[in-house]
Amino acid sequence: MKNISILGSTGSIGTQTLEVVRENPGLYKVNALTAQNSADLLIQQALEFNPDLVVIGNEVHYTKVKTALPSIKVLCGEEALIEAVTLPETHFVITALVGSVGLKPTIAAIKAKKDIGLANKETLVVAGELVMELAQQNGVEIIPVDSEHSAIFQCLVGEKNNPVEKIILTASGGPFRGKDRTFLSSVTKKEALKHPNWVMGAKITIDSASLMNKGLEVIEAKWLFNLQPEQIEVVVHPQSVIHSMVQFNDGSIKAQMGVPDMKLPIHYALAYPQRIRNNFKRFDFLNYPELTFSHADTKTFRNLELAYNAMKKGGNMPCIINAANEIVVDAFLKDQIGFLEMSDVIEEAMENVPFIAHPTLQDYLETDEQTRIFAAEVVTKHLLTNLK
Amino acid sequence: MKNISILGSTGSIGTQTLEVVRENPGLYKVNALTAQNSADLLIQQALEFNPDLVVIGNEVHYTKVKTALPSIKVLCGEEALIEAVTLPETHFVITALVGSVGLKPTIAAIKAKKDIGLANKETLVVAGELVMELAQQNGVEIIPVDSEHSAIFQCLVGEKNNPVEKIILTASGGPFRGKDRTFLSSVTKKEALKHPNWVMGAKITIDSASLMNKGLEVIEAKWLFNLQPEQIEVVVHPQSVIHSMVQFNDGSIKAQMGVPDMKLPIHYALAYPQRIRNNFKRFDFLNYPELTFSHADTKTFRNLELAYNAMKKGGNMPCIINAANEIVVDAFLKDQIGFLEMSDVIEEAMENVPFIAHPTLQDYLETDEQTRIFAAEVVTKHLLTNLK
Repeated sequence: MKNISILGSTGSIGTQTLEVVRENPGLYKVNALTAQNSADLLIQQALEFNPDLVVIGNEVHYTKVKTALPSIKVLCGEEALIEAVTLPETHFVITALVGSVGLKPTIAAIKAKKDIGLANKETLVVAGELVMELAQQNGVEIIPVDSEHSAIFQCLVGEKNNPVEKIILTASGGPFRGKDRTFLSSVTKKEALKHPNWVMGAKITIDSASLMNKGLEVIEAKWLFNLQPEQIEVVVHPQSVIHSMVQFNDGSIKAQMGVPDMKLPIHYALAYPQRIRNNFKRFDFLNYPELTFSHADTKTFRNLELAYNAMKKGGNMPCIINAANEIVVDAFLKDQIGFLEMSDVIEEAMENVPFIAHPTLQDYLETDEQTRIFAAEVVTKHLLTNLK
Repeated sequence: MKNISILGSTGSIGTQTLEVVRENPGLYKVNALTAQNSADLLIQQALEFNPDLVVIGNEVHYTKVKTALPSIKVLCGEEALIEAVTLPETHFVITALVGSVGLKPTIAAIKAKKDIGLANKETLVVAGELVMELAQQNGVEIIPVDSEHSAIFQCLVGEKNNPVEKIILTASGGPFRGKDRTFLSSVTKKEALKHPNWVMGAKITIDSASLMNKGLEVIEAKWLFNLQPEQIEVVVHPQSVIHSMVQFNDGSIKAQMGVPDMKLPIHYALAYPQRIRNNFKRFDFLNYPELTFSHADTKTFRNLELAYNAMKKGGNMPCIINAANEIVVDAFLKDQIGFLEMSDVIEEAMENVPFIAHPTLQDYLETDEQTRIFAAEVVTKHLLTNLK
């Protein structure tokens, strides 16, 4: 029996994690569930899985949750997340919350020597060097839940002593693959939210449409697998069947494949190093007679190039790009700026927020806040211009 | 420094093995080289690699080889192969000879506790159960050199405790993919010898065109990876980029990919468990924008179905199909029978050579001989009918 805490249990990864737990009775015990705002779903989950601790982030929902769960400990606020990940009986923490808010609890979990199922890529994007060092010092395994990084992790099993030449992250290309900038200048959030292959939360779906998701994944991969920027390649593969690949120093490539279903990498992270039988839909080549591959169009989708630049620059630059991106995606989802303006705002933030070559955790947190303020101001300027 | 003996050093796999040795100075020492008939090339190889022992199978060439290599021990005949694989200083034996003649020396090598780089698939097809048992008893690793089996072996690294749901062997489909039986009835050996992707010896190239190679690989895989017949699937993949795949019990698939070049699996087998850097051509998705997949046409290419039947029947049936196939390929290469007649003769042998459910090594050797005589007789009948 593995005891798990789930940060962000009401989101897309969180609910799918609970599905995996439900489908594998006797294997996993849920110790803690947390959510920011979705009080009703959180209550329902707590009634089903009976955790020791429930955390509701937004304190306006506290009384409602507390009343509905009289026999469970209920807390609220950001500090309570730390308690959720450091419960003595917890073995494994799934970090399924969205954005850089995952950084602090992830660090707390690592310091408490809990293994991590990392679904919150922003944590590594913002402070990958620091987080990976801490994991090593504490003997903690970080098992990626992102399908691409899970694929690479799986390809590296048993190959620890064999140098990696490069990794190849596959990208679906999102709903706007093949479109030009004229087309993109007028796309709506409704169109951007229609991902061709994956069912995911809103933020990551917009990131997929803008290729920022791939950019963040590139940075995440650098830290997870200890690579140089030139060892990370992106290939557009619209069918999302090959989830990613590793090329070793003898030229041999290993790929991990399957139907696009997030439950597979979630299940893998929970069961690792074992694999546990499941009844997920199996891949069938008859359904995919053709797998296609092409280069990413970084002239049209500028975010991917901006992310590579941030990775190469290092320091707090990935933190800047991530914070700016969280602001612009939110603004795009609120119809405040257009699709292409997202990259413009991010680039402005990268040029203007002070660069720090060797940031501390405090520097990261300050950069994150500073960038959000800066990007929000630029968004407001765009909004005002757009309204004219 | 790994000391190796190469059985069949003048064939396609043998010469490519020596290329790998040449390209990795200081890593491998050649202890023994053997060839059946190619005396000139064998002499040239011995002069370059300076082995302790050279074996020429066909004794008519003995004096020539002995005279050319005054300072090297030279032997001839089948028994001398045993000496080549059991040299005390040899660590690793590459079995690169063609046909069931590889069985006895492979068994001798295993008994002498030499690890095996298995390029002679007929050994496992004929007597897989016996050979794998012997390998386990002697603590010997059998590392496949066939690209498909090397792919599966690589995908299984680090996954020893995780049950395999099935393996998926890829097949190029050969030069006659998509053709019908009317077309196949009149194809020439010249056409059959043009493989679209792989540069290989004549026997295996004909086997690829007739899909018997895939059939033999299916049986080889059963023994190498300890599988049930229904766990082995064949998928036609004309680009030969994905060399084969493993599907685990959680539905996750691992694939091994690369440019079609036999030197990669040879290099892998020699270096295992390490991977060693090389300068082989790297795979580039721009050269392969589309990877395609389809089912094998076993109605047109009957050999694959015959091989599945032989595998399911077990006992000495795979030995019968293999021996009959060696005879018919030889006859096809001598223009004695047509392409489609190969399956007919094989089927007749399967129906007529006595079945033994639990054969001993002696039974296998006798079945092999008996089948060859029977198949040769049937070939003669076909030849006489064809001449009418």
